[in-house]
Amino acid sequence: MADTEKFMFASDYQEGAHPNIMKRLMETNMVSTDGYGVDGFCASAKDRIRKACGCPEAEVEFLVGGTQTNATVIDALLKPYQGVISADCGHINVHEAGAIEFGGHKVLSLPAEFGKLSAKQVGDCLEAYASDGNRDHMVMPGMVYLSQPTEYGTLYSLEELKQIHNICRYYRVPLYVDGARLSYALASPENDVTLEDLASLADVFYIGGTKCGALFGEAVVIPDPGLIPHFFTIIKQHGALLAKGRLLGIQFDELFRDDLYFHIGDSADRFALKIQDALKNAGIPLLFESPTNQVFFICPDEKIEEISKAAEYAFMEKYDERHTVLRFATSWATTEEKVDKLCEALQELS
Amino acid sequence: MADTEKFMFASDYQEGAHPNIMKRLMETNMVSTDGYGVDGFCASAKDRIRKACGCPEAEVEFLVGGTQTNATVIDALLKPYQGVISADCGHINVHEAGAIEFGGHKVLSLPAEFGKLSAKQVGDCLEAYASDGNRDHMVMPGMVYLSQPTEYGTLYSLEELKQIHNICRYYRVPLYVDGARLSYALASPENDVTLEDLASLADVFYIGGTKCGALFGEAVVIPDPGLIPHFFTIIKQHGALLAKGRLLGIQFDELFRDDLYFHIGDSADRFALKIQDALKNAGIPLLFESPTNQVFFICPDEKIEEISKAAEYAFMEKYDERHTVLRFATSWATTEEKVDKLCEALQELS
Amino acid sequence: MADTEKFMFASDYQEGAHPNIMKRLMETNMVSTDGYGVDGFCASAKDRIRKACGCPEAEVEFLVGGTQTNATVIDALLKPYQGVISADCGHINVHEAGAIEFGGHKVLSLPAEFGKLSAKQVGDCLEAYASDGNRDHMVMPGMVYLSQPTEYGTLYSLEELKQIHNICRYYRVPLYVDGARLSYALASPENDVTLEDLASLADVFYIGGTKCGALFGEAVVIPDPGLIPHFFTIIKQHGALLAKGRLLGIQFDELFRDDLYFHIGDSADRFALKIQDALKNAGIPLLFESPTNQVFFICPDEKIEEISKAAEYAFMEKYDERHTVLRFATSWATTEEKVDKLCEALQELS
Amino acid sequence: MADTEKFMFASDYQEGAHPNIMKRLMETNMVSTDGYGVDGFCASAKDRIRKACGCPEAEVEFLVGGTQTNATVIDALLKPYQGVISADCGHINVHEAGAIEFGGHKVLSLPAEFGKLSAKQVGDCLEAYASDGNRDHMVMPGMVYLSQPTEYGTLYSLEELKQIHNICRYYRVPLYVDGARLSYALASPENDVTLEDLASLADVFYIGGTKCGALFGEAVVIPDPGLIPHFFTIIKQHGALLAKGRLLGIQFDELFRDDLYFHIGDSADRFALKIQDALKNAGIPLLFESPTNQVFFICPDEKIEEISKAAEYAFMEKYDERHTVLRFATSWATTEEKVDKLCEALQELS
Repeated sequence: MADTEKFMFASDYQEGAHPNIMKRLMETNMVSTDGYGVDGFCASAKDRIRKACGCPEAEVEFLVGGTQTNATVIDALLKPYQGVISADCGHINVHEAGAIEFGGHKVLSLPAEFGKLSAKQVGDCLEAYASDGNRDHMVMPGMVYLSQPTEYGTLYSLEELKQIHNICRYYRVPLYVDGARLSYALASPENDVTLEDLASLADVFYIGGTKCGALFGEAVVIPDPGLIPHFFTIIKQHGALLAKGRLLGIQFDELFRDDLYFHIGDSADRFALKIQDALKNAGIPLLFESPTNQVFFICPDEKIEEISKAAEYAFMEKYDERHTVLRFATSWATTEEKVDKLCEALQELS
Repeated sequence: MADTEKFMFASDYQEGAHPNIMKRLMETNMVSTDGYGVDGFCASAKDRIRKACGCPEAEVEFLVGGTQTNATVIDALLKPYQGVISADCGHINVHEAGAIEFGGHKVLSLPAEFGKLSAKQVGDCLEAYASDGNRDHMVMPGMVYLSQPTEYGTLYSLEELKQIHNICRYYRVPLYVDGARLSYALASPENDVTLEDLASLADVFYIGGTKCGALFGEAVVIPDPGLIPHFFTIIKQHGALLAKGRLLGIQFDELFRDDLYFHIGDSADRFALKIQDALKNAGIPLLFESPTNQVFFICPDEKIEEISKAAEYAFMEKYDERHTVLRFATSWATTEEKVDKLCEALQELS
Repeated sequence: MADTEKFMFASDYQEGAHPNIMKRLMETNMVSTDGYGVDGFCASAKDRIRKACGCPEAEVEFLVGGTQTNATVIDALLKPYQGVISADCGHINVHEAGAIEFGGHKVLSLPAEFGKLSAKQVGDCLEAYASDGNRDHMVMPGMVYLSQPTEYGTLYSLEELKQIHNICRYYRVPLYVDGARLSYALASPENDVTLEDLASLADVFYIGGTKCGALFGEAVVIPDPGLIPHFFTIIKQHGALLAKGRLLGIQFDELFRDDLYFHIGDSADRFALKIQDALKNAGIPLLFESPTNQVFFICPDEKIEEISKAAEYAFMEKYDERHTVLRFATSWATTEEKVDKLCEALQELS
Repeated sequence: MADTEKFMFASDYQEGAHPNIMKRLMETNMVSTDGYGVDGFCASAKDRIRKACGCPEAEVEFLVGGTQTNATVIDALLKPYQGVISADCGHINVHEAGAIEFGGHKVLSLPAEFGKLSAKQVGDCLEAYASDGNRDHMVMPGMVYLSQPTEYGTLYSLEELKQIHNICRYYRVPLYVDGARLSYALASPENDVTLEDLASLADVFYIGGTKCGALFGEAVVIPDPGLIPHFFTIIKQHGALLAKGRLLGIQFDELFRDDLYFHIGDSADRFALKIQDALKNAGIPLLFESPTNQVFFICPDEKIEEISKAAEYAFMEKYDERHTVLRFATSWATTEEKVDKLCEALQELS
């Protein structure tokens, strides 16, 4: 009945949760707590996250999924007449079925390079609005949305983030960072942005659980706890308040126990490098060298069928008349055995 | 750290999930599946639910929580210029933080008696609109929302449901039933409405998981599978699409294995009767005799402190100058031992 | 082709505009100005209104119609998770086709007596929210909406308005007054609320033009000019920004030249009294004694046909099995000749 | 007080209305009619428009302004999970302050060439959605928005419109044409698209009044009268229903009496050619040769000050480091005298 026998590299949310989480869920199953996140598990998890962020005053709230979190936070930060600046390939601009517009806001998209915006682009956009004589007839850019790592698995450097942060400060718009895959950034050798950096540079960010070892769950961190009044009610209004909030508390309590979250992405990032090497050895060019757990490669169309026999992948986009960009994603749950078999299969591609 | 030592009767979502569910989640944890509910667990669970509803063609979709489900279904069923008829104490009218209005729709509330609307009330409301010369300036009633059991734990009889169904057919508005606590209705000796009845009388209804043995999850049943085109995208737009949809599939697969769902509320309903007897014996009048797992009683204000030492309860509303309506809720997880201790404590109330 | 020959008392917007307005529109027709209300006519009109309100700092903005104005102002004043307190018969609750909900907000309706809310009702509603343990799951009352005169033509006294103002201050929610028919309040001998009073008691109010002598137009007055940042853009976003904004400026410039607005309702109010006398003489009871331009009477159903031959009226609601509440409305454009003929016709009712 | 003395070429809505309209408004001012467009003037105007469109069955509704009309029509045509395809410079994408997103919909913008989209672009966009494996997570393109003439004053040819129409039919999405400046298209010698063509190729379009001789007003034409059920209520909900709807009826009755609308743009288009010649003679290059009433030219930055002394213009965008695109707009109200003086002033630019 279950889909166990294929090598699945289509996405990084194809298994359940880290064993520590499952164990704790079992142990605590019959404990009685209040609902809606007002329980001891959540309190403990929030404390651990505040510590990990070096932010003892931060407000931390747990939501269930990424689209929900983005819509809730963005609606909470924007005035009704404001929009959110995003990379054109940003999750909120492409793959959230219009959740941001459902909340009444325009996504002001800018062309990104492999998922990243530059401080200059953001600044130019904000300045263009500020200096446009017709700006009162236009959507005001009210915040900036980035993802770390990006939808393409690329990383903002600390320097890049600081520049964007400075631009945001200058134009007085908040900076929000989507960390759906944050553990894979934190585990990357190329990464120089810590959780503490994020907490000091972003006005709001979220620490992804769903793709990073949890069954589900995203932890929203608001370093300045007064930033969003009545956030609880906003969450409720968005249908994003989990009745048994403890489930989120338990999961994040485990993810941030003994620094698990900082290392849960290690193997996935390492395996992605292995797969990238295998692709190159097989003569299949990468779209770019990825520093995290997503591998993008330019596949000759005639090889797609063969590859699809070896493993599930994700289709990204046509590259040209005869090539297609495909993606393999590894995760904390990916085994080296499966990776090696994938690499072998790639090696055998004629 | 956890809140184990009190007798908690404040709500019916204070523990984790039924052991069968936890066991299955553990067993399947490392199975790889596709995301978003396109997996074998979900397929199996949907089949079981279709069978239980006697509705082999029904569309079944799994969402995470009740407010989310209500908002998503109601937004999907209504045209932008329509509103939803609801009891004034309906969950959507009072305790969803305006989620229905967030989606652009008015809740057209009617005064309910212990949570229930009558077919006459619904018909009068629909007829008043139809015959109002200014109706084109008004919100059109576009659907009817009921809950079974209601927010007060009361039950619609089959005859009552049929009458409301007939009114809805006559005025061509869909009928939607919120079954957040449906297992406690199905378990009640007073109940004469089966899942099959619901499937033949409601245009859409949901089978509650969160309060009925699951960690979370609600199963939306649409007997006519063509009723809501693109429901998947509507769910996504509402931030209500769980990435690891299999978690919902696994839970409902267990809830509908061997008729578990039909009996999971048995003990809770029985315990509620026991508590009601204890209250009456203690000279504390009930607001009404409840047929399901929620007990509402009219507590003299001077006894509230004493009761609050015995157990957690929910505050409902002031009854008069000197009395307050309080609620005890039992659940599938409530033990007879705790109930007995509560009854003893009530007995000792001076 | 036009509908000239009946005595039309169905509403107070059945003719064009006061002759002074038409004359000025003609004279200025070929003057070139900037669009969107940034012109000399608007500047002059705003100055006159500020003076009439004793409010030299007030922000004044012109919109086209009442529903539009209510939706724009209410959306501007409320946070997304807030609702607006209104009489159940309030225009926003009944006859705006869900425009407030379209903007995402719940109308929190309270039962009104002939259109009026009491300070106690408003205070109880605000206190009930403030003291509800579940309030974070509920829509927060974020402002109070009144109309002066009300939808039933009744008037808030200065004392009543002060009490409601004080309640609003205490709970820190803004008070908004819909003045669609304000000229008929100002002209009423029973009225003791001046424009200056409104400007000191309401956080926002609008001075109705459409029903009070203009072709169209409502003047929103915001005594504290910093209250609603970016109101221009909010107006634009609501499709409520008139390209040739000067048309609104010209009209209000005339309405507030030589105190025209303060007297334009005089005859209408006087005629309403005359009609009320005629009804009483004909043995037809009034619903109540109306102080302004709307007359509500309890018509025996067998006389409706006869009355409908005499004049157009508005249907309000069934009174009982054999009576119906009907309305006659006079306006600044109603002639005494027509009123006398209506009174004669009423006299002849058997 | 009024701004009469400059040569104003900043926009085409700087004066009042065509004298025929003003005369009729005066003559009919004290006629009593029902409100909300249910009057003889509107009926007559609708008949004239139906005839002019060769569309005897069409539904015609009058709204007040362009942004309002676009938002109302687009919200009426789209399902909540759909977006509207538009040129990136489309009015709805840039200058409506997010009115479309306020209604919950994404504007799916495509890069335009001088305001125009090609059938290929539209088809590629629709096909890309249809063939995307993730389309259920994306905003569905639910309609196509064009403007004729475009925001740059350019024109779709009949052939181009037919091709776009065919693409829309193939993908079953409605085509909506914004005719804010339609009279200037109809008057252009280069135009080969008649009103009858529009009525046969567009599913909905509007005939602009505000910029084409009226005080205000846009006439929405829906050739298939069953396309948008309850459009009246949708208009009301958008705050777009004018109480004295007759004002719109009177204006369009005049605009479509004796083919006035077909010729009211003649002089403006002719004057635009004159101004374009003058600019070229002065050595100032045009951005492109405009066929209608808007003239776009590439002004060396050092000449801007001099030009601004000669006349009001609209700023469009930076062209390069040393040039700026400016716009002159003529209208039905522009006099040849003013045009000649502008041309003289341009001639004298050093």
